[in-house]
Amino acid sequence: MRENSGLLTDLYELTMAAGYFETGLQARATFELFVRHLPPRRNYLVAAGLEQALEYLESVDFSPDEIAYLRQHRHFRRIHEDFFTYLAKFRFTGDVWAMPEGTLMFPGEPIMRLTAPIIEAQILETYLLATLGYQTMVASKAARIFTAARGRQVVDFSARRAHGASASLLSARASVIGGCEGTSNTLAGHRFGIGTHGTQAHSWVMAHEDESEAFAHFLDTFPAGAVLLVDTYDVRSAVKKIIAMGRKPAGIRLDSGNLIADSRWARRELDRAGWQDVKIFASGDLDEYRIAALLREGAAIDAFGVGSALGTPADASHLSLIYKLVEIERGGKVREAAKFSRAKVTYPGRKQVFRHSRPSGEFESDKIALDDEPANGAGPLLIQVVRDGRRIAPPESVVALRERCIAGLACLPKRLRRIDRAATFPVRYSKRLQAMLENVRQRVRRSSVK
Amino acid sequence: MRENSGLLTDLYELTMAAGYFETGLQARATFELFVRHLPPRRNYLVAAGLEQALEYLESVDFSPDEIAYLRQHRHFRRIHEDFFTYLAKFRFTGDVWAMPEGTLMFPGEPIMRLTAPIIEAQILETYLLATLGYQTMVASKAARIFTAARGRQVVDFSARRAHGASASLLSARASVIGGCEGTSNTLAGHRFGIGTHGTQAHSWVMAHEDESEAFAHFLDTFPAGAVLLVDTYDVRSAVKKIIAMGRKPAGIRLDSGNLIADSRWARRELDRAGWQDVKIFASGDLDEYRIAALLREGAAIDAFGVGSALGTPADASHLSLIYKLVEIERGGKVREAAKFSRAKVTYPGRKQVFRHSRPSGEFESDKIALDDEPANGAGPLLIQVVRDGRRIAPPESVVALRERCIAGLACLPKRLRRIDRAATFPVRYSKRLQAMLENVRQRVRRSSVK
Repeated sequence: MRENSGLLTDLYELTMAAGYFETGLQARATFELFVRHLPPRRNYLVAAGLEQALEYLESVDFSPDEIAYLRQHRHFRRIHEDFFTYLAKFRFTGDVWAMPEGTLMFPGEPIMRLTAPIIEAQILETYLLATLGYQTMVASKAARIFTAARGRQVVDFSARRAHGASASLLSARASVIGGCEGTSNTLAGHRFGIGTHGTQAHSWVMAHEDESEAFAHFLDTFPAGAVLLVDTYDVRSAVKKIIAMGRKPAGIRLDSGNLIADSRWARRELDRAGWQDVKIFASGDLDEYRIAALLREGAAIDAFGVGSALGTPADASHLSLIYKLVEIERGGKVREAAKFSRAKVTYPGRKQVFRHSRPSGEFESDKIALDDEPANGAGPLLIQVVRDGRRIAPPESVVALRERCIAGLACLPKRLRRIDRAATFPVRYSKRLQAMLENVRQRVRRSSVK
Repeated sequence: MRENSGLLTDLYELTMAAGYFETGLQARATFELFVRHLPPRRNYLVAAGLEQALEYLESVDFSPDEIAYLRQHRHFRRIHEDFFTYLAKFRFTGDVWAMPEGTLMFPGEPIMRLTAPIIEAQILETYLLATLGYQTMVASKAARIFTAARGRQVVDFSARRAHGASASLLSARASVIGGCEGTSNTLAGHRFGIGTHGTQAHSWVMAHEDESEAFAHFLDTFPAGAVLLVDTYDVRSAVKKIIAMGRKPAGIRLDSGNLIADSRWARRELDRAGWQDVKIFASGDLDEYRIAALLREGAAIDAFGVGSALGTPADASHLSLIYKLVEIERGGKVREAAKFSRAKVTYPGRKQVFRHSRPSGEFESDKIALDDEPANGAGPLLIQVVRDGRRIAPPESVVALRERCIAGLACLPKRLRRIDRAATFPVRYSKRLQAMLENVRQRVRRSSVK
């Protein structure tokens, strides 16, 4: 796949582009990306995916064969040559503001705002929604799992359940932003500079004549770091074999069975052998609810491997990020845009989010305001990351993004850190924004009956 | 991303590879990929993803910088140079059998079986699970949506909800295999030769002074194929405006509101204007259940756009495909492998699936047998696609895969075609396979207490 292909978009973005071009509508548009509601049981989201979004914004273009493909498409047969010449030179020239990755965010708050010629802004919609939506979903889930693990390591094991290999890289990255200590995904480790974990699978044990041979061979190869998988046949006999061999592994891993009883039993046996420093890892269909229950019920587990719950959360299989036109400048005239339908309102205007904190550092409330409203001592959350199509924010390390997220979680009111839906963080709209909404509502009402 | 990177795998595949290498364990292993259970409410699955799996199998390797990355990894510091030399020359040399894409399949039936040096087979595990699992999940969901639409067009709109842009390509491809007529995903259309659809979004309407100008400009650009979106402000006034303009569009699209009442009202108005051939499209959080309900209640809808339900199904966010060792050949000795744990049994041996059909063509039952058992007139479902690392099955067009799926659905007993969990298709294991399972069970029991 050409990762910066301009065709990575819904066809209607390109038909609209052709329409703007053909009808000569020159406009500069501002779009904002945000969610209307939190997924079930969530109290906050963790912004993620900006780095991949910026890489795309900076490099997106159309190759000659992609333009040839469009040229022969039934919708484009009557489109004039100028449009294809335009696509051949296409690059993003706009301005972008965004929440740094790892920032905690709430419904209505733009994770990104971009102002650009309307054709450019439209073509980018699909890619931005997919990239920011997916990583934000995973980072937000990871933060819940990180919280439930109460300081124990959580490692991303989602690669095999990911929506293809590329998705697995994004999943690993976003899992670490949300608090995971590392990943099993080797390429993600290499590419993003994050820690990688994993030593053996059931097949290793099954490929050997018996468990003792399998464990001995692994300890021969990895005398320092071996984590031995003990549930291929019978957990307790496997742990006894390891202790009887007298060769201390770095840890053992339980992947099935009664994790509470088996981990407590294994801890006692390992301690009795003088192996207090041998860690117990657990994996197998874990999520924040199971981890919380395991710890509440006294499981002796030092670290968790979490797979599908991170990469493909069953309680929120996607994040409903939306991309809304909030302002349009056409012929020198600026017009705020909003959409009104049953139970759905989109606020117009270019927005900024101001976060108010208590003297203790605890987050108190957010105000969504117009970007030129005074901050009044609150920190603005959206920063400019692209100017005239050029990136002005340097890449940040994934480790730094994780630290931002963990610092944010520590400032979140305690009741909102819970893994059950607890309370709504106070987010209000500024008076100017509310007045602007009312103006647009009246204008749209007049225009729609015309 | 290097799409054929050998690092696209869980780290434990590589530590095990190093372990086999260092301890001199030479073995040829056979692994099978299958699901133990169907996701909720499903009666069948549709095999998909083989093409991408084969592209990876044929090209997977390790680049010098990937090997350098492993070399400095804490787990690999004591591994000898021979292993890294091996990785530098790594390529897949094994044999692969698989179900052709578009084949209907059931729990326990291998979608793929591969026999290769154990190191190669392990390294491929993660990629194969992700690629086959995701596309099979989407194609299976698409087949349900296709069935619910009772002959009306279904178009994949999932790109913006996909787990990143690469996942969106796989989602579009698998959606078409499962019966969708096309996709909104432009690059998927270009790359896979599938139809692309889409004309305008709410932002097109909002960017214009009023709806009439927006519709007129679009019809100017696309006099033949324009589908006009009518729910930006008010559906009925939008439809009236279009009719009053007297310029017939190809269709209208409803994306919100009461799809039943609005579609019936719009159909009457369009017909009254003499526009019986103007199609009504519907979209907006649709899935097989909503589509079935809309049609049952008399909605006048000609085609459906389906997004997140295809790419990220909420009722099955991933498919629990597993990769199990079923046979190992070590030192000239073949040993069947199986895993036994509470409520989980994996059958040993190299398997084939034989499908029995009635004279009418209707599928009657499947038998999972050893690959050298006689077919007795039934059709074997797994075919050899790779020999000695070289692909022997040519690529098939996505259109042909879709036809295979639709033909399969027509042969499925009617009760199993329902979108509710209806019945279990009869799948049994051959007597020889059952006897082999019992032998392995006794051998493992003896060995695990050693």
